[in-house]
Formats: sequence, structure tokens, C-alpha cells
Amino acid sequence: MHTLTDPYMQLLGLETRLVEPGRAVVAAQVRPEHLNIHGACHGGFLYSLADAAFALASNSHGTAAVALTTQMQYFKAVQAGEHLEAHALEEHLGRRTATYRIEVRSNGRVVALFTGTVFRFAEG
Amino acid sequence: MHTLTDPYMQLLGLETRLVEPGRAVVAAQVRPEHLNIHGACHGGFLYSLADAAFALASNSHGTAAVALTTQMQYFKAVQAGEHLEAHALEEHLGRRTATYRIEVRSNGRVVALFTGTVFRFAEG
Amino acid sequence: MHTLTDPYMQLLGLETRLVEPGRAVVAAQVRPEHLNIHGACHGGFLYSLADAAFALASNSHGTAAVALTTQMQYFKAVQAGEHLEAHALEEHLGRRTATYRIEVRSNGRVVALFTGTVFRFAEG
Amino acid sequence: MHTLTDPYMQLLGLETRLVEPGRAVVAAQVRPEHLNIHGACHGGFLYSLADAAFALASNSHGTAAVALTTQMQYFKAVQAGEHLEAHALEEHLGRRTATYRIEVRSNGRVVALFTGTVFRFAEG
Repeated sequence: MHTLTDPYMQLLGLETRLVEPGRAVVAAQVRPEHLNIHGACHGGFLYSLADAAFALASNSHGTAAVALTTQMQYFKAVQAGEHLEAHALEEHLGRRTATYRIEVRSNGRVVALFTGTVFRFAEG
Repeated sequence: MHTLTDPYMQLLGLETRLVEPGRAVVAAQVRPEHLNIHGACHGGFLYSLADAAFALASNSHGTAAVALTTQMQYFKAVQAGEHLEAHALEEHLGRRTATYRIEVRSNGRVVALFTGTVFRFAEG
Repeated sequence: MHTLTDPYMQLLGLETRLVEPGRAVVAAQVRPEHLNIHGACHGGFLYSLADAAFALASNSHGTAAVALTTQMQYFKAVQAGEHLEAHALEEHLGRRTATYRIEVRSNGRVVALFTGTVFRFAEG
Repeated sequence: MHTLTDPYMQLLGLETRLVEPGRAVVAAQVRPEHLNIHGACHGGFLYSLADAAFALASNSHGTAAVALTTQMQYFKAVQAGEHLEAHALEEHLGRRTATYRIEVRSNGRVVALFTGTVFRFAEG
């Protein structure tokens, strides 16, 4: 069984839409409490949305996986009210590490790109 | 005058401790609502803490700065109750871009390392 | 006219196969002088191959572009004799910055993944 | 005993100055064959210099280490004739992974910053 949410996702209003082996989709609407000092969506919120999809996708094979390194590219400012989706895909699945690409989309357009690598713990 | 908080920082319980030209310190305690599916502090929370210090430091010169790319290295799992501090230092200040190093520390130990580059808008 | 090679590409034996607006392909064979202390292809060589494709693709629009930040993910060791191709695609084209994804492939398999962001100079 | 050079370092003219547990320094002079299409030092050469120091530092503990992910920040264009040094320091040493910071310096100034994470193989 996959875990589909956690306390941090609930705090931010992040909702799991899909989890399959190596894939996940997480969605959220940008609310006033997600804004930064410039009045736009906070980069930490966009990252957290992508990171949630990353965690679900990388833990979808039944082996516990923890993040080692991540990167985020911000393409476009996001405003309050926008509906966002983070789509995670597996770039590479190795025995002890794996890498994922997560697109953060608004209205079908990629507004930020996340790449993350996990360490996979050995099974039983 | 520097803006010392924003709605997203308030949602997460992040507190600004210091802002100086090119530097910032943001602090937080890890609470139950910051935990992930493994019961440890969520990577998105650690990133958001670092990102808040990054935003304050990179906007500390009076020129608006927005994140272009960031990287995060996770060294150690963080548990509920830990007191964290994110310390941002300027690695490089150019005319149109600048780069910052942010250490996330717990009990003086670096638990995660963030590197971020901003685009700096031209002044009036 | 696009410049299709430079002294560093010649030193490493890198050959341009394609340059189109926002795209480039560079190829090379791994030779004994490209190996590292483990006897496999040096990570710096794989990066240089990807970086050459990144430079060609990001300079393909007639605006001079210079690298700001890059990331590299290594998936699989590469051996002497392998034929490699680096395929660069544009992830995002903005006015002053742009981001590219470069896959390093051997026999159709992605052995390393490069992501890079450039600063674009204003035109005349 | 540490291996202090390899074929790729020799091709590029990279010279090891220091290897200690968790540390390394590699030096090079920028020559005409290291230049890019803009007539400045190629980003792949700067990366390769940093990567050589990264490899030496991460393999300095007697456990074989291979690169998983790396990042590079370019701060300043480098010209032919400049003398460069890459200084590698250990940010974090874990059982199965470790992270290094490598500064590329010219005349004492940091011209590029590299961060890299390795996977460490288990010992006999």
C-alpha cells in the first residue's frame, strides 16, 4: 500500500492525484498563505509540491527511499489562485539510487522543473 | 527597510533572526505538521527554511532578486522538536545574478546544504 | 552562421552532428585518454560532451549566451570504445535566461543527464 | 597510496598539488586548446579541473567513490594564460554517500563553484 499523504502535505493543502510504480501526480491551488515577499507564490511552496510528488514516486516500488540531492529551476512567477500539478517521472532506477524529473505545471505550462536523486535502502 | 516575513513563512512558523547586506538567518522548530511519510522532517520544510533565508539575503541590497536555480543536499534526517537555523551567505554578487550558500543547522551541525542563484532586476 | 566547433571540442574529439534553433547534437568516441583513475570514462569528459551541446543549443538563437549554473546526474559507468551522443533540448526560453536538458546516450540508453541555465545578453 | 593522476588529467594538463583525507588541490594553466566559441576558457575545462579535485578528495579515504550528482556555478569568465587551482573540501562524509565543495580559483578569487555527491562502495 502506498501512503498518499503526510502531515506536511496536509499543512500545505497538497493532494495526491496518482501514484504508480515510478510515477506520481500531486496537485494544489495557490492560496494567500503561500505567497512570498513579492506577492507571488513562494519558491518553497513550488518546491514542496514537487518534492511531495518526488517522495511518492521514489517510494512507489516498495523500497524506502530518501532524498540525497535535488535541483529546482524556476521558469515563471506563479500567482494566487492558480491550480498547480506536479508530475513525477522516473529518469533512472538503479539498485541503490534513483533519479526523478518533476514538472510543476499551471494550465499545462511548465512553470518550474525539479530533478531529484534518492538513496534506496536495501530490502529485508 | 527589509521585509522580515511573508505569509508563507508565517504558515510554516519560520522566524527571521538577522538580515544584513548579503546575509540572513531564519529559524524554526520542527513541529508534528512538518513531518513526512517516514515520520521525519519533510525535505520540503527544510528547503523552505533555507529558501526563506536565501530570499532575505538576496533581496538585502535594495535590488529585487528572484530565484533562477537552486540545489539542496540532504545530509541527515531531522526529527520533530529539533530547533533549526538557516544561515545564508553570499558566494558571489554580480550585476545581474548572485549566488548564495545556505547551511541548515541543528545543534550547530549542518544537516542540509542549499545553493541558490538569483536574477537581479535593474534599478530604476 | 553557427560556430560548429572550438579548440576545446577539438582537443577532446567532440564532433557536432546537428545545430538547430534550441537544439544540438554532439558525438564522440571514448578513447584511452578520456579515462579516469577507475579505468572508466572520466566524469569531466561526459560533462564536457554535454556542455558542448548545451553551448551550441543555447547560442543557436543569435543571442550570445553564457552558462550560469549546470547540474549533472551520472547513471552508468561508460567504458573505452563506446560511442556517445549528447542531445540538447530547450526546456525554457526566456528573455534573459534559458534552460536546457542534455541527455548523454550510449547505444540509445541515457548514461548521464545534464541540466543547464544560461544568461542571455541583450541584442544590439 | 593515492593515485595522483589519470589519462584524462594528462590530456588536459591538470596537475595534482595535494591529496589528504577529504581534501585535494589540482592546478592548471589555461591554454589556447582550452578555449570555447567565445574565446574564453571552456566551461567543460573548468568543470573537469574541479571534477579531478573532487575525484581525488572523495577517493582519499581508501573506499572507492563514484560521482552521483554534481552542480557547477560559473561566476566569472576565465581567459587564456590564467593559472587556476581547484580546492576540494569535504562538506559531509556519510557511510554510503559524501559531499564535497570545490572552489575554482584564479589569483585567489573564486571564479566557479562546484558541489558534488558520491556513492561510496562498501569495503571488502
